Amino acid sequence: MITVNREEAAKLLLEQDKILILMHKSPDGDTVGCGYALAMALRKLGKQAQPVCSDRIPDSYRYFTDFVPEQVFEPQFIVSTDVADTKLLGDKTGVYRDRIDLSIDHHGSNRAFAGYGVTDASAPACAQLMPDIIEAMGVEIDPQIANALFTGLTTDTGCFCYTSVTADTHRTAAYLMDKGADAGMINRLMFETKSRARIELEKLAMASLRFYCGGRLALICITTEMMQQSGAQDNDTESIPSIPRQIEGVQVAVTVKQKGEKDYKISLRTTDEIDASAVCAALGGGGHRAAAGCSFSGSLEEAVETIVGLSAKAIESAAV
Amino acid sequence: MITVNREEAAKLLLEQDKILILMHKSPDGDTVGCGYALAMALRKLGKQAQPVCSDRIPDSYRYFTDFVPEQVFEPQFIVSTDVADTKLLGDKTGVYRDRIDLSIDHHGSNRAFAGYGVTDASAPACAQLMPDIIEAMGVEIDPQIANALFTGLTTDTGCFCYTSVTADTHRTAAYLMDKGADAGMINRLMFETKSRARIELEKLAMASLRFYCGGRLALICITTEMMQQSGAQDNDTESIPSIPRQIEGVQVAVTVKQKGEKDYKISLRTTDEIDASAVCAALGGGGHRAAAGCSFSGSLEEAVETIVGLSAKAIESAAV
Repeated sequence: MITVNREEAAKLLLEQDKILILMHKSPDGDTVGCGYALAMALRKLGKQAQPVCSDRIPDSYRYFTDFVPEQVFEPQFIVSTDVADTKLLGDKTGVYRDRIDLSIDHHGSNRAFAGYGVTDASAPACAQLMPDIIEAMGVEIDPQIANALFTGLTTDTGCFCYTSVTADTHRTAAYLMDKGADAGMINRLMFETKSRARIELEKLAMASLRFYCGGRLALICITTEMMQQSGAQDNDTESIPSIPRQIEGVQVAVTVKQKGEKDYKISLRTTDEIDASAVCAALGGGGHRAAAGCSFSGSLEEAVETIVGLSAKAIESAAV
Repeated sequence: MITVNREEAAKLLLEQDKILILMHKSPDGDTVGCGYALAMALRKLGKQAQPVCSDRIPDSYRYFTDFVPEQVFEPQFIVSTDVADTKLLGDKTGVYRDRIDLSIDHHGSNRAFAGYGVTDASAPACAQLMPDIIEAMGVEIDPQIANALFTGLTTDTGCFCYTSVTADTHRTAAYLMDKGADAGMINRLMFETKSRARIELEKLAMASLRFYCGGRLALICITTEMMQQSGAQDNDTESIPSIPRQIEGVQVAVTVKQKGEKDYKISLRTTDEIDASAVCAALGGGGHRAAAGCSFSGSLEEAVETIVGLSAKAIESAAV
């Protein structure tokens, strides 16, 4: 891969037409925001350009994806946005893995799979690189492009909250707002809207919160009954494990989720000192050091007792 | 009150010494951040300056308050930061209510109680006004001042997530980071770490969540009993109003907080269609269109009934 800067990337794009833009599978706000922003910019230059993804683009991004009606053409130039590895393309767009001409990315782990590549590992979002590239092509950023890029910036930084955020991130945010990004609408949509069912589930889950080991272990339960009572769906449980994890002094955060009558899924989140995957391995599970999981068959009481026992041992060992 | 701009406010401060800086009661990150930042700036000019508050400053702000050891003097000039109304001073500093020389504030509802005042209602945090004032005094913003102001900016905007955030807010954030603000540390401390007491309070507050007006009004209560039961401190309640506000379909999010046996503080967060300050004005309160507050004397049931009634009327009017 030949490393290029933002101006050189813009020059490459200006020379091309019929440009296919690959986004990674399980699309997030950054890959989608960058892919669609680039497509909009290229179309403003009269070029054909189409972002594609192996998975369906969530409807929640329609406030900018709607501005990019589908174009079908034989691609002459292939770009990827926010893709660190061609493995992440997925089944549908994976067929282009050996034909990628230009990669625009912010992952230090980028596998250098493209002919040319611009990678800025200091940027917390790929969207932070895009305004320079788009403007170097001579395209004025309009409110739709600004919305797409602001989405990438805010979703990849947890609304400017992560430690990866730099002064340049805030400068880019300010600039995109100057160009018409509706930050309030985007943040509300991405971060602040919880369904009534989700909040009801959180309320029940919070009520189940228990502490062990002098506050170093926090445990939350989600039972089938709680799911039914709240009307929550499976994806409403995504944010629950962050509840015990945020608590000061907690080293092991456990979420026990009922999957069947006597069937539980246990997930662990741990601080540096504790190996979550080692704890879960004792029950036939696994994962990473800071996040792991396992299954359990038996009653809820048995599930809780077992995982609390194993976690307590790990906490004691770590304290030695 | 004579309206002054930021440069004129700086000029007034430069002429003075023995400056007392009043912060509002139930101190939040913005009033404390601005009060301490101003004190640090004035001390860099060799002046005596002391921020004071009727309530205890939470320990969570010690990463900047520790840089301002107490000075005792007979005040010659009195400034208030982020104080919209002298009623908000509280018992201890309320004695200065008729002697305030300069008010620095961002509330459109500022009661013009001071001799001179700089009020920017377009700023989501008072901290957004401060860099200009401090630099107009000829003081270079150092990392401690930057940390104090970044705290005000991020806490008053829910980590840059609220609709009140403007491009200037992000520009100020970038500028303060350039000057040494440790944004990652501050955001982690303010948003990602919850004390055991805070999580216990959230659990109780979640359990109090009630819906009215077909789900367009959500209400949460914080009683003295809940504060005692959880062991929470006053600043642990800051994040509570965001709970009802996040719920899909909610136009008016109400938090009723008990302050004394028959004494309640009501805070409203509203969507675009509803003017929160108009609803609160009916109870003698005020604030911004999207966020306002008022006091109520009576029982909890009366407080809830009254604010639900007033809010329901506003919801009905907005629906016409």
